[in-house]
Amino acid sequence: MSDIVRIATDSRMSRVVKAADLIFVGGQTSNDRTFDVKVQTRQVLANIDGFLSLAGADKTRLVSAQVWLADIARDFAAMNEVWEAWLPPGCAPTRATVEAKLAAADMLVEISVTALA
Amino acid sequence: MSDIVRIATDSRMSRVVKAADLIFVGGQTSNDRTFDVKVQTRQVLANIDGFLSLAGADKTRLVSAQVWLADIARDFAAMNEVWEAWLPPGCAPTRATVEAKLAAADMLVEISVTALA
Amino acid sequence: MSDIVRIATDSRMSRVVKAADLIFVGGQTSNDRTFDVKVQTRQVLANIDGFLSLAGADKTRLVSAQVWLADIARDFAAMNEVWEAWLPPGCAPTRATVEAKLAAADMLVEISVTALA
Repeated sequence: MSDIVRIATDSRMSRVVKAADLIFVGGQTSNDRTFDVKVQTRQVLANIDGFLSLAGADKTRLVSAQVWLADIARDFAAMNEVWEAWLPPGCAPTRATVEAKLAAADMLVEISVTALA
Repeated sequence: MSDIVRIATDSRMSRVVKAADLIFVGGQTSNDRTFDVKVQTRQVLANIDGFLSLAGADKTRLVSAQVWLADIARDFAAMNEVWEAWLPPGCAPTRATVEAKLAAADMLVEISVTALA
Repeated sequence: MSDIVRIATDSRMSRVVKAADLIFVGGQTSNDRTFDVKVQTRQVLANIDGFLSLAGADKTRLVSAQVWLADIARDFAAMNEVWEAWLPPGCAPTRATVEAKLAAADMLVEISVTALA
């Protein structure tokens, strides 16, 4: 039986978990939410880079992603522009993107990814 | 090639599936939905305990979770209180929590988890 | 270390990724969205059949699914009718179904699945 590695764990969640040869990064949001969706997306993706690195991986190992946007009609194109600039060529994960109200009114984007260890 | 174990399967879904060393528990909701979000969250987590047990695991093996709340502004704090009381210390999975209208108007919370077999 | 197989990859996403003995199919929507939710669901499931096939699997290997409906109160029953007719007996994956606004206003249903390789 393989085991579980939890990273940046508090009483509510772990930011990253390694198990069964996969790395799960929980839903990331931007720390500074005075910014528009492009800046928030960049901060979210920087968080994801950091957590993948803590788990010994990087964005070339992405398997799947989920994106939630607070306003998909307004922000879909801008989020995608930042997302596509961030992805290494040929390394795009599967993805689903839907609109959802997030945990705070000024959170415009939340992204969760799974990668291969 | 490893195989798939499906538990509590009907024509629409399985409540739990074991595959690739992981245990997938589908979106759980409360059976009695006359109650507020705290009671509904407790019932959802009791369902999850039961399904993890049927798959030979328990909540110390959680890897990732998704939480959907019908009203995140109103119910986020109350759901978290029940969630954090339920989690064993040091065992928090990754998590993403967003607002979504659920399959019935009186469903206030739905939670899906993945655990390590 | 096992590796990642990405299929139908562009600058934004892969339609299917194989990794860690699992097959991830990203959120699928209907190409022709002039139709109602039943026809759109059939097209989504046909897309999923095709992508599972490209990854060397089929719908008897489903592990988990997520369904997003643009109008869950109106379309839940109709989507389920098509979904249940499509599933092979005894092969239902775990599932979570919630309402979400999708990437275009005329998208009524989006479905993402995971299968065992």
